[in-house]
Amino acid sequence: MPDVLKNDRFLRALRREPTDTTPIWVMRQAGRYLPEYRATRERAGSFMGLAQHPEYACEVTLQPLQRFELDAAILFSDILTIPDAMGLGLSFAAGEGPQFARPVRNAADIARLAVPDMDGELRYVMDAVRLIRQELHGRVPLIGFSGSPWTLACYMVEGQGSKDFATLKTMCWNEPELAHQLLDTLARAVATYLIAQAAAGAQALMVFDTWGGMLGPAPFREFSLRYMAQIVAALKADPASRELPVILFSKGAGAHVAALADTGCAGLGLDWTMDLADARRMVGGRVALQGNLDPAILRASPEVIRRQARVVMDSYGNHPGHVFNLGHGITPDVAPGHVQVLVDEVHAYGRTLRGG
Amino acid sequence: MPDVLKNDRFLRALRREPTDTTPIWVMRQAGRYLPEYRATRERAGSFMGLAQHPEYACEVTLQPLQRFELDAAILFSDILTIPDAMGLGLSFAAGEGPQFARPVRNAADIARLAVPDMDGELRYVMDAVRLIRQELHGRVPLIGFSGSPWTLACYMVEGQGSKDFATLKTMCWNEPELAHQLLDTLARAVATYLIAQAAAGAQALMVFDTWGGMLGPAPFREFSLRYMAQIVAALKADPASRELPVILFSKGAGAHVAALADTGCAGLGLDWTMDLADARRMVGGRVALQGNLDPAILRASPEVIRRQARVVMDSYGNHPGHVFNLGHGITPDVAPGHVQVLVDEVHAYGRTLRGG
Repeated sequence: MPDVLKNDRFLRALRREPTDTTPIWVMRQAGRYLPEYRATRERAGSFMGLAQHPEYACEVTLQPLQRFELDAAILFSDILTIPDAMGLGLSFAAGEGPQFARPVRNAADIARLAVPDMDGELRYVMDAVRLIRQELHGRVPLIGFSGSPWTLACYMVEGQGSKDFATLKTMCWNEPELAHQLLDTLARAVATYLIAQAAAGAQALMVFDTWGGMLGPAPFREFSLRYMAQIVAALKADPASRELPVILFSKGAGAHVAALADTGCAGLGLDWTMDLADARRMVGGRVALQGNLDPAILRASPEVIRRQARVVMDSYGNHPGHVFNLGHGITPDVAPGHVQVLVDEVHAYGRTLRGG
Repeated sequence: MPDVLKNDRFLRALRREPTDTTPIWVMRQAGRYLPEYRATRERAGSFMGLAQHPEYACEVTLQPLQRFELDAAILFSDILTIPDAMGLGLSFAAGEGPQFARPVRNAADIARLAVPDMDGELRYVMDAVRLIRQELHGRVPLIGFSGSPWTLACYMVEGQGSKDFATLKTMCWNEPELAHQLLDTLARAVATYLIAQAAAGAQALMVFDTWGGMLGPAPFREFSLRYMAQIVAALKADPASRELPVILFSKGAGAHVAALADTGCAGLGLDWTMDLADARRMVGGRVALQGNLDPAILRASPEVIRRQARVVMDSYGNHPGHVFNLGHGITPDVAPGHVQVLVDEVHAYGRTLRGG
C-alpha cells in the first residue's frame, strides 16, 4: 500500500485548484547534467541498460529529488520503449540520437506490429513504476509517460532522428491508409502502456509529441492530434487511469493549443516560443499549463535565471493551473546549482504571487 | 541599361495588385536537386567557389529558369557572406553546414567587426547581381537577399550550426549590451549590403531569419525583430532601395506575423506550420504573403503535389498578394520533374481561382 501523498501541489495545479505556491518539475530532470546520473549510467553500461533495469531506473529517477525541492518525479525511461518492445531494436550510439535496427518501411512491416505485452516485453517499465512509487514514500507524485503515436512513428519509419522525417511524411502523403494503420496501432499501444503505468502506480500521465510541430495545421490534426485524442479517450474509459490527469506536450505546436485542450486532457506542456498569457487566453481556462522557460536560460547567471523565471510566472499571472517547467528538456551542460536557483525562485516567487 | 521587365507577377503580388495568376518561385531553386547545378558546383570546386565567382553564380541562378516557368530569380549566394567578409573565414565541410574559422566570442571580437566594403570584400556579390540582371534580359525580376542580424549572429558566435545556439543566447542573457552591439553592427552591414544589391540591380530584397523562431516572444522582439525593422527603415530611407519590396522570412515565427508586418515590409515569408488564412487575418491585408507548401510534399506523388498546392492556394483565397513558395528550401532529394508539376499546377490553378 503506497504512502499517502505529502506534496500534492503538482496534482492540484493540474486540477486548477489553488496551491500555496507554483509547483515545478523539470523535463529530463534525471539526466546527464547530474554527476550522480552519469555515475549510475556508467555502471549500467548503456542508456537502455539504465532504462531497462528497475533498480537503476528508480535510482536515477530519485536523484534530482535528493538535490532539489521538485514537486513531481517522472519515471526514468525513454519515449521509444514501445517500438523497442515491438521488436525494432532500439539503441543509442554514443553522442547520437536513438536508432532502430529494424525500421518500419512498408505494409508488411506495419501489419506485423502488435501491441506489446505489458507483463512481457514492457514489464521492466511497470516494475520500475512500482519500485519508484515504493521508494518515493509519497513524497511527491510520480509521472508516467510515453511518446505520442506521431513521434514514435517518426523514428520507427525513419529508423533514426532526422531534420524533417521526410520518410514518414511521404508515407502520409502517398499512402495515408498505411500511415493511419501504423498510427492507430501505436495509439492503442500507447493507451495500453499508460493504463498499465497507472495500474502500477503512476499518478499523472504525459504524452510527448516531440515532432508534431513540424506538421502543417491540417496534417497535425490528422496525423498527430487525432491519435492523442484517441489516447486521452481510452485513458478516461479505463478504471485504472480514469482519475489521472493527462498532460499533452506538442513541441512547436503553439498554434494548436485550443485544439489540444479539446482532447479532454488536464494540462498542456508548452515550449518557450509562446507567451503563457496568450496560451491561457486561447485555452480559456479549460486546462492547466505546464512550462515554459527556455532551457538555454539555465546556462545564464543566477540573476538572469531568477528574473526570467519571474517573467514566465508573471505571464501566467495569479491564477490556479500553472505547473512551472522548462519548454524542453534540460541540457547536459547546465550546472546543477542553476537548477537549485530556479526551483527556489519558483517556490519563493510563487508564494509572493499568491500574496502569501 | 537593363531590359524592360517582361513578367512582373511577382512584383505586382508583393504590391498586392491583381495578377493573371499566382506567381511562384522556390526557395533554394538553384540547388543540389538539379543535376546541372551539381555539375557547375563540381567545376567550381566548392560552395564558396561557386558563390564567389560571378560567372558561376549567374550560371546556377539561371538554371532553374531554363527548366521551369518560375516568376522570379534569386541571386545565388549564401546567407553568411557578410560575416565571411568581416574576416570570420566561412567554409562548408562536405555534408556539413557552415563553419567559421574565427568565431566571435567576446567584446574585443565584436569591437573589431566593421561593415564590409561593398566594393571590396563583397564586390563579387554586386558583380553577380549585375551579371545576372544582364543575362536575365528582363525575363523575371531578380531577388537579392541576406541573412538577418540574429541569424548571422547565431552562426558567428557559435562558429557553426547548432540545435539551440546556446552560446549566443547565453550572451543575450548575461551580456545583453554586447549582443546588441553585435546585432546593431550586423543590421548596419545588412542594410548597406542590401542597398548595394539594389544599386547593382536587385528588384526585390529578402531577409532570411532562419533562427528567429527559436526565441521566446520577448527575446524575438528584442534580438531579432528589432534589427529587421531597423533594416527595413534603412532601406526605405535610401534612394537605391526605397522602391524595392522587402520580404521578411522568420522561420517558426508564426506567432509574430502581425509584428513583422508592422516593420513596413512588403511581404512575409511563412513556413508551412501556419494556415495562410489565419496569417492573412493576423496581418489584416497590410502585407503580401509568400509560402507555404511543406517542402517534404515535393517527395510525394504528382497527384499529391497538385492537391496540396491547391490546398495552400485555397487557404489564401482569391485575394491579391500571394506569392507561392515552399515553407523552407527545396531539399536535394526532390526530382526536378516534381518541381515542374508544382509550377504548372500553381499557374493553372491560380488562373482558375481568379475565374480566368
